[in-house]
Amino acid sequence: MHQYKYFLGEKDMPTHWYNIIADMKTPPPPYRHPATLELLGPDDLAPVFPMALIEQEVSKERYIEIPDQVQDVLKMWRPSPLYRAARWENMLDTPAKIYYKWEGVSPPGSHKPNTAVAQAYYAKQEGLEGFATETGAGQWGSALCFAAQLFGLQCKVFMVTISYHQKPYRRVMMETWGGSVVPSPSSETKAGRDILEVDPETTGSLGIAISEAIEYAVTHDGFKYSLGSVVNFVLMHQTVIGQEALKQMEMVGEYPDILIGCAGGGSNAAGLIYPFLKDKLNGDKPELRAIFVESTACPSMTKGIYAFDWGDTAKTGPVAKMHTVGHSFIPAPVHAGGLRYHGMAPSICALLDQGFVEARAYHQNEILTAAESFAQAEGFIVAPETAHAIKAVQDEAIACRESGEGKVILFNNSGHGNLDLAAFDAFHRKELPDYKLEEAVVQKALEELPQVPA
Amino acid sequence: MHQYKYFLGEKDMPTHWYNIIADMKTPPPPYRHPATLELLGPDDLAPVFPMALIEQEVSKERYIEIPDQVQDVLKMWRPSPLYRAARWENMLDTPAKIYYKWEGVSPPGSHKPNTAVAQAYYAKQEGLEGFATETGAGQWGSALCFAAQLFGLQCKVFMVTISYHQKPYRRVMMETWGGSVVPSPSSETKAGRDILEVDPETTGSLGIAISEAIEYAVTHDGFKYSLGSVVNFVLMHQTVIGQEALKQMEMVGEYPDILIGCAGGGSNAAGLIYPFLKDKLNGDKPELRAIFVESTACPSMTKGIYAFDWGDTAKTGPVAKMHTVGHSFIPAPVHAGGLRYHGMAPSICALLDQGFVEARAYHQNEILTAAESFAQAEGFIVAPETAHAIKAVQDEAIACRESGEGKVILFNNSGHGNLDLAAFDAFHRKELPDYKLEEAVVQKALEELPQVPA
Repeated sequence: MHQYKYFLGEKDMPTHWYNIIADMKTPPPPYRHPATLELLGPDDLAPVFPMALIEQEVSKERYIEIPDQVQDVLKMWRPSPLYRAARWENMLDTPAKIYYKWEGVSPPGSHKPNTAVAQAYYAKQEGLEGFATETGAGQWGSALCFAAQLFGLQCKVFMVTISYHQKPYRRVMMETWGGSVVPSPSSETKAGRDILEVDPETTGSLGIAISEAIEYAVTHDGFKYSLGSVVNFVLMHQTVIGQEALKQMEMVGEYPDILIGCAGGGSNAAGLIYPFLKDKLNGDKPELRAIFVESTACPSMTKGIYAFDWGDTAKTGPVAKMHTVGHSFIPAPVHAGGLRYHGMAPSICALLDQGFVEARAYHQNEILTAAESFAQAEGFIVAPETAHAIKAVQDEAIACRESGEGKVILFNNSGHGNLDLAAFDAFHRKELPDYKLEEAVVQKALEELPQVPA
Repeated sequence: MHQYKYFLGEKDMPTHWYNIIADMKTPPPPYRHPATLELLGPDDLAPVFPMALIEQEVSKERYIEIPDQVQDVLKMWRPSPLYRAARWENMLDTPAKIYYKWEGVSPPGSHKPNTAVAQAYYAKQEGLEGFATETGAGQWGSALCFAAQLFGLQCKVFMVTISYHQKPYRRVMMETWGGSVVPSPSSETKAGRDILEVDPETTGSLGIAISEAIEYAVTHDGFKYSLGSVVNFVLMHQTVIGQEALKQMEMVGEYPDILIGCAGGGSNAAGLIYPFLKDKLNGDKPELRAIFVESTACPSMTKGIYAFDWGDTAKTGPVAKMHTVGHSFIPAPVHAGGLRYHGMAPSICALLDQGFVEARAYHQNEILTAAESFAQAEGFIVAPETAHAIKAVQDEAIACRESGEGKVILFNNSGHGNLDLAAFDAFHRKELPDYKLEEAVVQKALEELPQVPA
C-alpha cells in the first residue's frame, strides 16, 4: 500500500519567514509614488499599511522571525499535509511522481490565512480597529475576516461584483466570522461611484476593489488596508508552505524536479516555490523548474509587458514594475476570481524576466476538465484558481508518460472548491465560455501605463 | 503554547471494525419482515444489500477485519486529526477540556465515506453495477458517489426535495463524482408517485427517499440499495473514528468523562462512542457518559416511543425495534437534513433503553448560535447536524464552569458546513423558524406502527 500523507508535528512548523529578495542578484526595482511617480518611501505607505509590514516589505533580511502569537494561530491547522497523488498518477498512467501541499485544511479553506493572521497580528499590535480589503472569489476576504476576528478587529470587504453574485456562500462565510461585505464597485467610495457612473453593469475587477478598499481605509480612523497577494511581505508570509514542503520532501526522500502553482497575484505559488528556488538562485539546483500558471482571461505574464504600472485601477496604490495587462483592463468574468488581477507580484516578475521561472496560461474549460479528473482520482474538489495548477501538473505528467521520465512534480493545492461548485455546475452543463482575449483592449490598457522617470 | 492537533500515522489506522453487539448483554431484537412481520432471515435482505454486509449485520463477532482495499482508500484522509478546542474553552471560560475528532477532512467533508467506501468495495466484489440510495442534506449521497466512483460503480441518489433546493452545491458535488441525483419524492418510483399524488408540495423526508431508493434498487438489474446510517454494519464501519480517538486520547494522556455526537440515524455518534462505551459495558468505566443529540423537529429518542416500526415510509424496508416518531411522520424542514429520520439505530435505542447512554434534543436557532461561537473560536464552520453536538458540548462546558469541574469532553465534529451556508445566512437574517412539534401529528403517526407478533 502507498503512503498518501506526510505530516509534520506542530513543533516542526517554520519559525521564520523566508525573504527571497536576500538571494536575488537583481531584486525588483523599488515602488514609485502613485501621483508623483518618484521613489516611494516607507512614510508614503504609512497611511495604508501597518508599519511592521512596511518594514518587512523593504527588508533585505533572508529570514524574519514569526511572532509567537502568529505561530500559535497558524497551528490551528498547520503544518499542512503533504500528499502523494498516487491515484491520480495511476489514472494519468504516468511514471511521474506527483506530490502536493494541501492548503484546503485551513478553516477558510485556502492558503490565504497564512498572511491574514500575520497582518491581523501586526494591526492589533499597532492599535488599529480594523481592516478594509478587496476580495475576488472570496478566499482572501474570508481568510481576513477569520483572522481579524481572532484578534478582535473589524473587517470591511469589497467583493468583486461578479463573484459576490456567483459565490454567495463566501459572503455568508465572511459574515459568520463577523465581516461586513459589499459588492464592488460600490457606492460607498468615490472610486466605486466613478466606475458605476461610467458602467453601471460592470462585473468589477480586483483592481477596482483594491482602489475602494484603500480609499475606505485612508478615510476611516483606526482602519488600514490589507492586501492578500502581490506585495513582498505577503509572499514572505506564504513561505511557511514551501519550508514545510522542504522538510516533508525530505521525509519522502525526494527533491522536486518541477514546482507548480497558480498565480493571480502570485502568493500561493511563491509561498511553495521560493524556499526551493533559493537552491536554484544559489546554483545548487540549476535544473529546477518552477511554473506559475495564470488564466488566459488575465494573462499578465504570458501576454502582458514587463513595465511599471499602478497596482490598482484608480491609481491610488503604489506603482511597481511588473508583468501587467494594464491597470484599466477588466478581465472576462471567469470563475477563477482570484486570478483576475491585471499585474503580478514584482519579485515573481523579476525572476521571470531573469529566466529563473516559467509562466503559462489556460482557459477555464480545460482547467475544470483537469480538476474533475483530479477530483475523481484524489477526491478533493479544488478551487477554480487551483485548477490552473492542476492542469499544468497534468500536462507535465503526460509529457513524462511520453518521454518515459519519472520526474518528481510538487504543486500547491491551494484551496478547496466547496464554495465554487457553481463553476463545476456550469461546466457540467457546458455553459462555460472560453473567453477570447481582446488584444485591442489589452493594447489600449497598456497605453495608459505611467511614464516612470529613470 | 497549546498543542492543538494529535495525528496518527497511516500505519496506526484501525485494521478491524468494532461490533458492539458482542459486548451487549441484551442486544436489540432481530429485524422483522416488512410484509409478514415474521422474523427476517438473511435471504430476505439479499435483494436489497450485498451479502457480505448482511453477514456483518447479523454478526456477533467483536472484531471484523477491514479489507486491505478499503483501508487503502480510507488512508486518502484517515486517520483523522484529534483537536483540542483550546480557544473555544477559553471563550466559554470553562475548566472543562474539550477535544474533538475532525471528520471534515475527508473529500466529501464528513464521516460518511467511512462506510460508503466499505459498501462500495463489497458491492464491487459481488459484481454489482451500482447503488441506489437516499440523502438528506447531501452528506451521505456525496460520500457514496465519491466511493462508488473510486470502485467504478454507478450511483443513483434520491435527495430529499427540501435539501435538493436548499443545498444545490451538494448536488453538483455528487455530479462531479459521477452521481445521478433526483429530488425525492420523484416520479421515477411508485413510492414517489404515490406520495406526490397525495401531496404534490411535500418537502419530502428521509423515510420517503429510502422507499424510493429501495424500490429503484430491487427493480434495476445489477443495482442494490445502500444505506448511510441506522443499520449495524454502518455503525460498525464508523467505529474507525472511536478506535482512532482511543489512541489519540492516550497520546494526550486523558480519558473522556463525556462523549457527545449528533444523531439522525446515529452512525457518526456511535462511531465515536462505541469503542469507548465498550469500557462501560464491561464495567471498567461505570461513570462514562455518552450523549446522543437529535433535532426537536424529529425527536425519536426524546419524544418517540421504543417499539417496532418500519425503517421507511412505504413500509418496504425491514421492521426494527427502535425509538421512533412513526414511519409516516414528516419532520419540519430544518436545515439539519441528516437528522430528519423518524427512527434511530436499533443498537443505540437498546443502549438508551438499558440506561447506558443519554439523549437530548435542540432547536435549530440554539444549535446555530453555538456553531457560530465555535466558528469564531476554532475557525471551522460545522454542518447544521454537527451543530447539535456543539450545542450539547457547550451546555456541558458551561455546567463545568458552574460546578468548577475540569471534565474531559470528547465530541465528534462530524462534518463541515461549507455546503450548508444557506442555513447560516437565514440564521443571520433571523429568518429561521424554531418549529413547534405537533404532538397530535406524532400521535397519529405512532398509531400506524406495526403489531409485531411476540
